Amino acid sequence: MSIVVQKYGGSSVADIAKIQQVADRVAAAQAAGKQLVVVVSAMGDTTDELLALAKRVTESPARRELDMLLSAGERVSMALLSMALNARGVPAVSFTGSQSGIVTNDAHTNARIVEVRPYRVQDELARGKVVIVAGYQGVSYKREVTTLGRGGSDTTAVALAAALDAEACEIYSDVEGVFSADPRLVPGARRLAELSYEEMQELAESGARVLNAQAVEFAKERGIAIYARATRGGGETVIRKFPPRAPGRVVGVASESGLMAVEAPGSELAALLAELDAHQAGGKQLLVHGHGPQARASLVLSLENLHDFPRLRERLRARLGAGLRLTEGLGAVSAIGAGINAGFQNLRKTLGVLAEWGVVPSAVSTSSFRISLLLPEPVLPEAVRRLHRALVEGEVSLSPAD
Amino acid sequence: MSIVVQKYGGSSVADIAKIQQVADRVAAAQAAGKQLVVVVSAMGDTTDELLALAKRVTESPARRELDMLLSAGERVSMALLSMALNARGVPAVSFTGSQSGIVTNDAHTNARIVEVRPYRVQDELARGKVVIVAGYQGVSYKREVTTLGRGGSDTTAVALAAALDAEACEIYSDVEGVFSADPRLVPGARRLAELSYEEMQELAESGARVLNAQAVEFAKERGIAIYARATRGGGETVIRKFPPRAPGRVVGVASESGLMAVEAPGSELAALLAELDAHQAGGKQLLVHGHGPQARASLVLSLENLHDFPRLRERLRARLGAGLRLTEGLGAVSAIGAGINAGFQNLRKTLGVLAEWGVVPSAVSTSSFRISLLLPEPVLPEAVRRLHRALVEGEVSLSPAD
Repeated sequence: MSIVVQKYGGSSVADIAKIQQVADRVAAAQAAGKQLVVVVSAMGDTTDELLALAKRVTESPARRELDMLLSAGERVSMALLSMALNARGVPAVSFTGSQSGIVTNDAHTNARIVEVRPYRVQDELARGKVVIVAGYQGVSYKREVTTLGRGGSDTTAVALAAALDAEACEIYSDVEGVFSADPRLVPGARRLAELSYEEMQELAESGARVLNAQAVEFAKERGIAIYARATRGGGETVIRKFPPRAPGRVVGVASESGLMAVEAPGSELAALLAELDAHQAGGKQLLVHGHGPQARASLVLSLENLHDFPRLRERLRARLGAGLRLTEGLGAVSAIGAGINAGFQNLRKTLGVLAEWGVVPSAVSTSSFRISLLLPEPVLPEAVRRLHRALVEGEVSLSPAD
Repeated sequence: MSIVVQKYGGSSVADIAKIQQVADRVAAAQAAGKQLVVVVSAMGDTTDELLALAKRVTESPARRELDMLLSAGERVSMALLSMALNARGVPAVSFTGSQSGIVTNDAHTNARIVEVRPYRVQDELARGKVVIVAGYQGVSYKREVTTLGRGGSDTTAVALAAALDAEACEIYSDVEGVFSADPRLVPGARRLAELSYEEMQELAESGARVLNAQAVEFAKERGIAIYARATRGGGETVIRKFPPRAPGRVVGVASESGLMAVEAPGSELAALLAELDAHQAGGKQLLVHGHGPQARASLVLSLENLHDFPRLRERLRARLGAGLRLTEGLGAVSAIGAGINAGFQNLRKTLGVLAEWGVVPSAVSTSSFRISLLLPEPVLPEAVRRLHRALVEGEVSLSPAD
């Protein structure tokens, strides 16, 4: 019998009525002859509410304790869903991340899955049960509870699908798959029926919230197809291996807020990186420019999973002194497509949009999959709209002379 | 260095301000040179709120899933308290019941502790840390999460105190120790400075909420002194081994609601008990009266930790048919004292109170420590007041001719 892993996000289990709907859907899938593993997030905004409680206790909570706190949320949703299935006569059992065998490294609040030992899950599937699994959490080899960072429930689902050799991994949320831009920002955004792993990874890393980047990486490694769907039905996006598209085609525009630029003398780079590592702060887009005594190092940090930022800022100031420059309140807008920079058309269109608009980015960076602009947070929505119009909807064309 | 185990109930950690107060108190005790283990309940009414969510999903939730759900509450309070201590510069670490080595049988929602393996707690104490432990929960030998029933955090605290050979076990709540009756019901109730284990056990089993009965049993076995105190300070009650009091002295009056009487033909007793066992429903005061075909079996059940009562009722009706009689909406009032029935004075006073009041109990039972009356729930508060006046305040005296 084939195994299907389904994942339901926080908005799909936000209240008892929605949990009952998910139970109906799971019961129907089981009746259709599937062995089901159901990964759930915490109900609605539970995780954010718990985080807010922690911030009221202390500005810099210990990450280990934060994981203990945050992992409470999925226990509630998974136990309630399991009860709802049992009440329908569908045998079900719920497991924590630890009980499901999700083993991680010890990077608290942003741990990576290093191994999956799904023996208890397999035992219960063999007994005909639906297995409900707490998303977003695992256990480190030091036997501590860990969490996987924002969107970590997707990673749980894909990692389990891979370990169980599942037929499919279905990710349910409140949007019908992946769009070329956030439809709340861009009326012209369109659903992407198919995406390659690489395209989805770049979109996720650029701020698209539908799917977590580590999850896509797992799926790619093991060749698992991911189906992103809305809980209420409608269209879907399939993420799997596809033959390459025509190079230069832009599939979507995504944005990410909560970024900070850090700049320090080049001679302090080693000290800076050591401090960031100690706080498990992942950097992006490291640049060193100039050389000798004039060299400056700059990088961009995301504050998303960095729960003790005030302490990090204090430590950086103490260690690096006057040479340090921090710019908070930044964000990035990125256009994504395989071979996006094979020619310079897309970059030229992007710079054209900025010039016409009169906005100067703090940084522009490119890779073979992406063009990213570092901008002040408040202009991000408008930047997404303008870039989507120029690069995806294609209203701006370059004249032959350009 | 001597180890002290402190336990803080739900009302003592009901919000962030109260958690900060507990952190101050714990930090002060540590500064005074104690090694501290702090057992916490869930914040305020969290457990009842989670239970209400479960009841909205299904009338008869699976007990195993209920434990998964309910054990989420202490994770939140323990992590927040640990953060609050860390923020004060007091090194602290929080552990779940499982991580603390609280091993139980598999009686979900009302499990008994069978063993304590506090190795991780001892390791962290040796490192100079305050160890915060989730009360009310453990792990069964089947590696399932279990909970210990109402008041189970007390049991966690005493069991840890015993396993760690602690100097004292301090139970903090919102009342200053144990009173001769609930002070909210009986204005004349007085604080009891000292109680023997046996007296406290009988009070707890009769409905006094200050301390859990299994906890007292543990303390008695290992000779641990329990100090019951209010978080805000004031008086206390010490529970330990005491030389016997003068026999017949009544120390207190307690009441318990949520009881049900079950009556069935004597020939069905085995079937009745098997069904109750299957639902882990603990009975009290089993009575068989009459004999042969006329024999009737009756017993009293508490609905407190019986989370799937509707299903039990249905099963009993299906199995026992017309011979079954269930009376819900009952409660018990009990007077407690060592040798309370050495003579019949206390029982005669009790019956005198009832006769004068004009209330007829459905059952009266006595033991060497207790006189209990089964009464309709609505009259319980008045029954406590009347019995306390007659037996503890001593306003009713028997005439020599009686």
